[in-house]
Amino acid sequence: MTLLPSNITIEVPTGTLISEVIQQSGLEFIQPCGGQGRCGRCAVIIEKNGVRRRSTIRLSAEDLDAGYALACQTVIEGPTTITIPEQERIERRLVTAKTARKVELPFEYDPAALQSVQAFQVSLPPPSLQDNLDDLSRLEKALADHGYTPLDIPLATLRRLGTTLRTAEWSPWVVIETQAPTSGPARLIDLSSDPIRPIGLAVDIGTTTVTAFLVDLTTGQVMNSAAEYNSQIARGEDVISRIIYAEKTDLNELGELVRQTIDTLLERLKRRTGVPPEGIHKVTVSGNTTMIHLFLGLPPSSIRLTPYIPTVNFPQSYLAAELNLGVHPQASVLCLPGVASYVGADISAGVLACGLTDVDELTLFIDIGTNGEMVLGTRDWMVACACSAGPAFEGAGVVDGMRATAGAIEEVWIHSETFEPTIRVIGNVSPRGICGSGLISILAELFVTGVVDKAGNVKLDLDTPRVRRGEHGPEYVVVWADETETGRDIVLTKVDVDNLMRAKAAIYAGFSVLAANVGVDLADVQQVLIGGAFGQYINVENAIKIGLLPDLPWDRFHFLGNTSVLGSYMALLSRQACEQMRDIAQGMTYIELSADNTFFEAFTAALFLPHTEINRFPSVAMVWERHRQD
Amino acid sequence: MTLLPSNITIEVPTGTLISEVIQQSGLEFIQPCGGQGRCGRCAVIIEKNGVRRRSTIRLSAEDLDAGYALACQTVIEGPTTITIPEQERIERRLVTAKTARKVELPFEYDPAALQSVQAFQVSLPPPSLQDNLDDLSRLEKALADHGYTPLDIPLATLRRLGTTLRTAEWSPWVVIETQAPTSGPARLIDLSSDPIRPIGLAVDIGTTTVTAFLVDLTTGQVMNSAAEYNSQIARGEDVISRIIYAEKTDLNELGELVRQTIDTLLERLKRRTGVPPEGIHKVTVSGNTTMIHLFLGLPPSSIRLTPYIPTVNFPQSYLAAELNLGVHPQASVLCLPGVASYVGADISAGVLACGLTDVDELTLFIDIGTNGEMVLGTRDWMVACACSAGPAFEGAGVVDGMRATAGAIEEVWIHSETFEPTIRVIGNVSPRGICGSGLISILAELFVTGVVDKAGNVKLDLDTPRVRRGEHGPEYVVVWADETETGRDIVLTKVDVDNLMRAKAAIYAGFSVLAANVGVDLADVQQVLIGGAFGQYINVENAIKIGLLPDLPWDRFHFLGNTSVLGSYMALLSRQACEQMRDIAQGMTYIELSADNTFFEAFTAALFLPHTEINRFPSVAMVWERHRQD
Repeated sequence: MTLLPSNITIEVPTGTLISEVIQQSGLEFIQPCGGQGRCGRCAVIIEKNGVRRRSTIRLSAEDLDAGYALACQTVIEGPTTITIPEQERIERRLVTAKTARKVELPFEYDPAALQSVQAFQVSLPPPSLQDNLDDLSRLEKALADHGYTPLDIPLATLRRLGTTLRTAEWSPWVVIETQAPTSGPARLIDLSSDPIRPIGLAVDIGTTTVTAFLVDLTTGQVMNSAAEYNSQIARGEDVISRIIYAEKTDLNELGELVRQTIDTLLERLKRRTGVPPEGIHKVTVSGNTTMIHLFLGLPPSSIRLTPYIPTVNFPQSYLAAELNLGVHPQASVLCLPGVASYVGADISAGVLACGLTDVDELTLFIDIGTNGEMVLGTRDWMVACACSAGPAFEGAGVVDGMRATAGAIEEVWIHSETFEPTIRVIGNVSPRGICGSGLISILAELFVTGVVDKAGNVKLDLDTPRVRRGEHGPEYVVVWADETETGRDIVLTKVDVDNLMRAKAAIYAGFSVLAANVGVDLADVQQVLIGGAFGQYINVENAIKIGLLPDLPWDRFHFLGNTSVLGSYMALLSRQACEQMRDIAQGMTYIELSADNTFFEAFTAALFLPHTEINRFPSVAMVWERHRQD
Repeated sequence: MTLLPSNITIEVPTGTLISEVIQQSGLEFIQPCGGQGRCGRCAVIIEKNGVRRRSTIRLSAEDLDAGYALACQTVIEGPTTITIPEQERIERRLVTAKTARKVELPFEYDPAALQSVQAFQVSLPPPSLQDNLDDLSRLEKALADHGYTPLDIPLATLRRLGTTLRTAEWSPWVVIETQAPTSGPARLIDLSSDPIRPIGLAVDIGTTTVTAFLVDLTTGQVMNSAAEYNSQIARGEDVISRIIYAEKTDLNELGELVRQTIDTLLERLKRRTGVPPEGIHKVTVSGNTTMIHLFLGLPPSSIRLTPYIPTVNFPQSYLAAELNLGVHPQASVLCLPGVASYVGADISAGVLACGLTDVDELTLFIDIGTNGEMVLGTRDWMVACACSAGPAFEGAGVVDGMRATAGAIEEVWIHSETFEPTIRVIGNVSPRGICGSGLISILAELFVTGVVDKAGNVKLDLDTPRVRRGEHGPEYVVVWADETETGRDIVLTKVDVDNLMRAKAAIYAGFSVLAANVGVDLADVQQVLIGGAFGQYINVENAIKIGLLPDLPWDRFHFLGNTSVLGSYMALLSRQACEQMRDIAQGMTYIELSADNTFFEAFTAALFLPHTEINRFPSVAMVWERHRQD
């Protein structure tokens, strides 16, 4: 076979692994997972076929089309030529794809049929002593000629009407919101003598992370997106602690904090696109029921007290001005419909975004956020439940946790003999901390390599300086201080491990109980759709290893990213999507996990790596055994 | 004849006036107008008939039924007995009737059919783990069972929903506003665990005076009413000066000032009835177009600039909170429809209140306020115009002017020889100033007795200390300082006379032009309906004498009081009344007086007492001649 770009040709017997050939050639070649076919980092490009891929883990269909193969999982069966890419290049490609990932239109976008907010210019005959119709009647008449009648004009707009009509020389631009397409009652959001482009904002208020898409309502395209930690975190990490804070201290403060976070996002979006917040004419908001209550300023107490009744599951839209939200004051702000106190709009939005309403096969949809919410069902029936996972997977509540932005360690491979890690960092920068997928990756590697045991205890007697007793107890050093951005060691502590284990146990227990409740076996689930801010970057294998996901064939898992904001985006684009979401929320059966002890028992059983009942995780048992044998 | 209560019997020849008999008897008896049959103050009660009334001026049908007759206008034709009432008693009766005058229901009031605001208690099934409907859906369901669906719940109400439902043990009182009777969409204004009585406020914002009726929406009765000068007066006396102030200085300040006036009225109404402002669930507002614009915070500039186009003639209702009005924040505030820049909601309301929509005969409706607005027509057609009269008739812009409250001189009679006045004061108090009817009365008397000439000049050479050159030029002293509440002389100055003459000239010119415009003669007008804050107290005779009203038979004039607030009250009570008012405003033809010189010429011609063309006022010419002969 021939190795490019160095153009070395080596004769090897049929059945030899490409990685073995490269090692023979003396070229530098990194295999973070030690040739276990786990990390995908040894990808090479097959220029001329003559190989057989044993496994294509980590390679996308696109990668395969481009000829990629894993050097450690591909055997030579005839004459062949391969290119060894600069390994950095692969990483850069991944990183670029990630940060600039374009959000596709979720459906064919016909604004005239779907969009409730329209902007256009309208011509009015100027008044005279003979035609002395008042300004508003004149505008109403012109809009009625376009089919929009009656017209609802907010006081603030009315106050600018006279001046604007005259500045615009009786041909103003209007932004209207309508309930039916192309005709019927309309609300005048804005009018101006300058052209107006209708812009929308799709928001997801997560307990830990707030995400926003800035959307051009003419094309439907996402102009830009931004995410930031929810400032409420400082007042409690999960919904229960937020509710208690709201009861005991200050409800309005929590509303104000999330508005500040949204303001931060709006400023960032303005910087990137030039669209000022007041140029946003419509907002849709997804989030769990507590987040929606706090955003609307509704006391959330009844959510945490039996029988767990929220004030509202189907909020009406309110004006931005009423909500003190810094977009156009007359923008309507629609909080999307939820199912129950602990299965909120994030799930209705997620179900719509993940396409569960279109499938016949048994599907599990999980939204892994601070609250783990999940839905089991098909297009015909859906049951839902929720459990508190905590913010660990979003990088919060962990000593060196951070969001999945530049500087975050998103993948780690630990050598099973030296316990030295190889890390992948988002962006070409020094590491600053560890994001959700990185935490899952580290925990899985620590477990597989025996640095932590089934119970999550760190083995301090291993022969490596990376394992030590630190300020917060036993810990594993992921990156030494001299290689970090901060100049401090990046570590994973025993406390962090416990948080992560509680989080994964809650989620696993959630869908175990859900399946048991409707009498199906988790093994019968044909597809697992995974949403969540961090969801799209995690690695099925690692997630199964730590017992976060059930041990099913990997191809049944689909990572969809933040499905809540995607559903919010769909609702922003389309009246029909809003209606569908309402149907979803109304049709779903909610199962209250706190109703009996079932959930607590399942949770306790799941507080091991991967689980007390190892037979539930045959693939993990196998890998683990192999490591033990090494 | 026999005189009671003194029981004196005197024999007199047939044809003797009762006043002559009383003079013969030596009893004390006041005849302010000197027996001219003008003042009505010499009323006596005919106990046993035998008399012939020559004139019954100042006596109502009710008075006649009670047997009243004017001593100076009634001759003896046979044996008779009369009672001489304590003359003070007549005055008290009039005063009492005035200040405590009850506002009658304008129509049969069926709140279920007419009223848009309803309050009632509603019972909800309490939630449980099995019935975990959210609070709002639960309430929506219960109200839908009453026929009210869909429900629009304001954010502020939603924020109290959870707590209130629980405090009320799931049987809250609700206040809803509906568009159709007994069913259809409803807006939740308020909810409470305590019973709620729905209350409304009908307001008239006059340029000079703001009036409010507090109304029990269950019975439709006016609980109390209050009036106060519009605080905007300090920023300009008429609408044009207010508009200029708003343009040059501060639009918001003018809105704030009228809200302060309304707040003052609300406080007064609260003191009298115990109903706090926040207990008011619905508000209707009448007023001229400029007043409505300033109240809504709309820039009024285009009202005063050709082609005189207001921002809005048919305002939608807005929430009290948006308008910063101190009633229930979720109360809807409906500003009534107007016709044009200078024929506002006060006229649409007035036309409804005066019944012009029901008459076949040619009718003139005048609303005499700071702006004189008038409508000529029948049920089939109406033309309207407006002219600026200034605030003189409301007691403003006159040195000793005041509103028609206790201490106001409301009628004056001047002796034609001594020039000594007899005054009638509202309430049993010392005089403080002169109200509109008093000013008309004084001007008429000064003219008839020759103290002022046709051009309004004060004759300083008369032999009386009451005529003098004062601080502000020539003046007539109505009350000497030692008899006044203030300890200062109450006077009418030459400047005051000029203001009054300009005011009356503007109004007379207005309806002259209106009649000419549609080709009718003022003499053909079958009834003149007069509205205005002061309207119900003025005296036709005096108003004709000064040329304010046309010289028609007195029985064609009907004084209706503040028709604008009455129309506002009707709109508050009834959806149908609101619709009628809209029809009135839409159906009326507006004549712009400034379009040519016709108005200015008519105004100049009317700047005399009663008018340059004395043949337009034959009855005045006659009286005046008689005085000249005395």
